[in-house]
Amino acid sequence: MRKRHLAIVGATGVVGQELIRLIIKRNFAFDKLSLYASMGDREIMVNDLAVPVRPLSEANFSDVDIAFFTAGTSASIEAAEMAAGQGALVIDNTNVFRMRDDVPLIVPQINMDDAQVRPASNIIANPNCSTIPVVRVMDILCKRWGVEQLVVSTYQAASGAGQLGIDALNQGNREFIRDQSNMSCEVFGTQLAGNLIPHIDEDLASGHTMEEQKMRQETRKILHEDQLTLNCTCVRVPVVNSHSAAVYARFDNSLNLDEVVAHLREGPDLSVHFDARSASFPEPRKVSGNEAVHIGRLRVDDEDDRALLFWVVSDNLLVGAALNAIQIAEGIDQWGWA
Amino acid sequence: MRKRHLAIVGATGVVGQELIRLIIKRNFAFDKLSLYASMGDREIMVNDLAVPVRPLSEANFSDVDIAFFTAGTSASIEAAEMAAGQGALVIDNTNVFRMRDDVPLIVPQINMDDAQVRPASNIIANPNCSTIPVVRVMDILCKRWGVEQLVVSTYQAASGAGQLGIDALNQGNREFIRDQSNMSCEVFGTQLAGNLIPHIDEDLASGHTMEEQKMRQETRKILHEDQLTLNCTCVRVPVVNSHSAAVYARFDNSLNLDEVVAHLREGPDLSVHFDARSASFPEPRKVSGNEAVHIGRLRVDDEDDRALLFWVVSDNLLVGAALNAIQIAEGIDQWGWA
Repeated sequence: MRKRHLAIVGATGVVGQELIRLIIKRNFAFDKLSLYASMGDREIMVNDLAVPVRPLSEANFSDVDIAFFTAGTSASIEAAEMAAGQGALVIDNTNVFRMRDDVPLIVPQINMDDAQVRPASNIIANPNCSTIPVVRVMDILCKRWGVEQLVVSTYQAASGAGQLGIDALNQGNREFIRDQSNMSCEVFGTQLAGNLIPHIDEDLASGHTMEEQKMRQETRKILHEDQLTLNCTCVRVPVVNSHSAAVYARFDNSLNLDEVVAHLREGPDLSVHFDARSASFPEPRKVSGNEAVHIGRLRVDDEDDRALLFWVVSDNLLVGAALNAIQIAEGIDQWGWA
Repeated sequence: MRKRHLAIVGATGVVGQELIRLIIKRNFAFDKLSLYASMGDREIMVNDLAVPVRPLSEANFSDVDIAFFTAGTSASIEAAEMAAGQGALVIDNTNVFRMRDDVPLIVPQINMDDAQVRPASNIIANPNCSTIPVVRVMDILCKRWGVEQLVVSTYQAASGAGQLGIDALNQGNREFIRDQSNMSCEVFGTQLAGNLIPHIDEDLASGHTMEEQKMRQETRKILHEDQLTLNCTCVRVPVVNSHSAAVYARFDNSLNLDEVVAHLREGPDLSVHFDARSASFPEPRKVSGNEAVHIGRLRVDDEDDRALLFWVVSDNLLVGAALNAIQIAEGIDQWGWA
C-alpha cells in the first residue's frame, strides 16, 4: 500500500460517510487516515480498524497528503486554508474556493486536465451537487454541437441539506399524515413534506439565489464556456436523496436525436434511458445509491432542431459530492504530482 | 333567480365537487341542477337540497342551458358532443375540443372576447390546469413587453390525476415511512411518494408528452401568439394539490423589475410575492384552496435585461379547473347570449 496520509474533515456527515465508504470500496491507497468533525465524539470502523473522530480544533495537516473537506462551516473553511498552507492538497466540497482563479474546479470525466499541475493554492474544488450532473451531460453535447443557451430547473433532494435535511423531511412526512396544518420546519424555513421550496442557499442582490449562481458560474468554468447563456431556478422537492433537473439546451448546430443518444451512450459513467417509441426516464428513488448520471426524456424539439430537452438525475451525495471528490484524488494519482 | 338549467357531468370527481361548491358560493343563478357521474349512486347536498347523481347513460341535455363537463372518459366526451348537439352550451374541461377552430379556449381574465358570440359548436373549452397559471402571468407581461421565448418546467400535484391520484400519493406516503422498497403504483405507473415522475399524459411521436404539447398549443391560442417559441417539461411531484412552474421568459424589449411587479400587482386575481431584499415565493401547501394565481421569485436576469424568471403556483382544481369554468359561465352572462 502506498504511503499516504489522508484526512477527512466532516467525517460524520452524510458526504463524509460516503467518502469513507468509497475509499474502502475503491481501494484508494493510504497508510494513515485522520478523521475530523466539529465534535470528535466517536469512532468509525474503517477496514476493521476503529478510527477515532477528533474535534477539528485539534487538527494538524502538516504531514497530511490529501485532505478532503466536506463541511461548509466557517471553522471548516478556516481549517481548509490552514491545511493548504501546511502543504496538504485540499479537495474541498464547499462553495468557498470554487471560483478562485488559482483553484481548479474539477469534474474528473470532463476537465481533469485543469489539474495537470499542482495548483499553487494547494486547493482543488469539487463543484456543487446540482451542477455536476448537468455538466456531465452538456460537456459531451457541447463538444459536438456547440452550446448557445441553457435553461435549467432543478428538483433537489432533502439530502442536499445533509442529515438534518433528511431528518426534517422524514419528520415532516410523519407529521403530514396526521396533521397537515403545521408548516414550521427549522432546517428548510418551511415544511418540505408535501411541498416545494423554490429557494436554496442565500439571496443575492441579483435576485438569483447563491445556488442558482453556482450553476451558472461553475458550468462556465468547468466547460470553459465563459460566455454561455445560462439561467436556472433551483427548487427543493420532498425527495430524500438524488437531485433531478429539467434542462432546455439550444445549440449552435442542428441536432440529430439518434446521434445525441449514441454520443451520450459513449460518455463515461452515463446511463441513457431512451426508447424511440415511448418516454423513458430515471427516477430519484430508483437512482439513489447508483454511481452513474442518469439521463432520460431526451427529445429534439420538433419545431427547432437546435433545441434539446432532457431530464437528468443523479445521487447528489455520491455523484454530486463524494464520488466526484475521490475521482479527483484518483485523477491526481494519474498525473503523479501528489 | 334566473331560470336556467345547469348540468354537471363528473359531479362526484374532485373538479366536479369544487364546481358545485363554487356555484353555491358565487350564487351562480340556476333553477334546475342535473348531476351526472359514471356511476349514479348517491345524492349531493346543494343549498340544503339533496340532488341525485344519475348515471351518465341516462343523461338528456335537450333542456339544459349550460353543461359543465369535468371528466375525461370516452363516455363523457361522447356525452359532451351529444349535449352540444342538443343545444346546451358545453363548458368542457378535457383536452378533446381545446384546439378546434370552432371552440373558443377561454381564460376569462385574458380572452373572454374570444367567446363574444356563441360558438357554432356550442362548446367552450377550459384550458389545462398547468397552462392557466402560466398564461395568467404571461398575458400581462406580453402586452407590455412582447414575448420572444418561454421555457417552462412544471411541478404538478397528485390531484391533477383526480381523487385516485391524491389517494395514491397518500397511500404511498404511508408506505414510504414503513418500507421504501415498494415502487409499484397503478395510478402513476411508479411510486410518486418521495419521487419525481417527468411524464404526464400520453407519449407523442415528437418525444414531448401530450401534457407538454398542451402547454405549448394552448398558450399560443389563448395569448393569440401563434409563433411563440415555447418549450416545456412537465413533471409530477409528491405534492397533494396545487401546481407550480419555474418559468424563463425572454421578451422583445428591456424589462424593469419594479415595472414588472407593478404591472402584475394590477393584474386580476394575481398575488405577487415580492420583496426587493430577499426572495419571496408562494408554496403549494399554502396556496391550496386559494383563488389567486401566486407569483414569486421574480427577477430580471442581471446579465440580460430582456429575460425574466419567476415561480408560479395555483390551486389546479380551483384556478386550473373549476373556478376558470364557472368564471367562463359568468363571463358569458355578461355577453348575454346564453
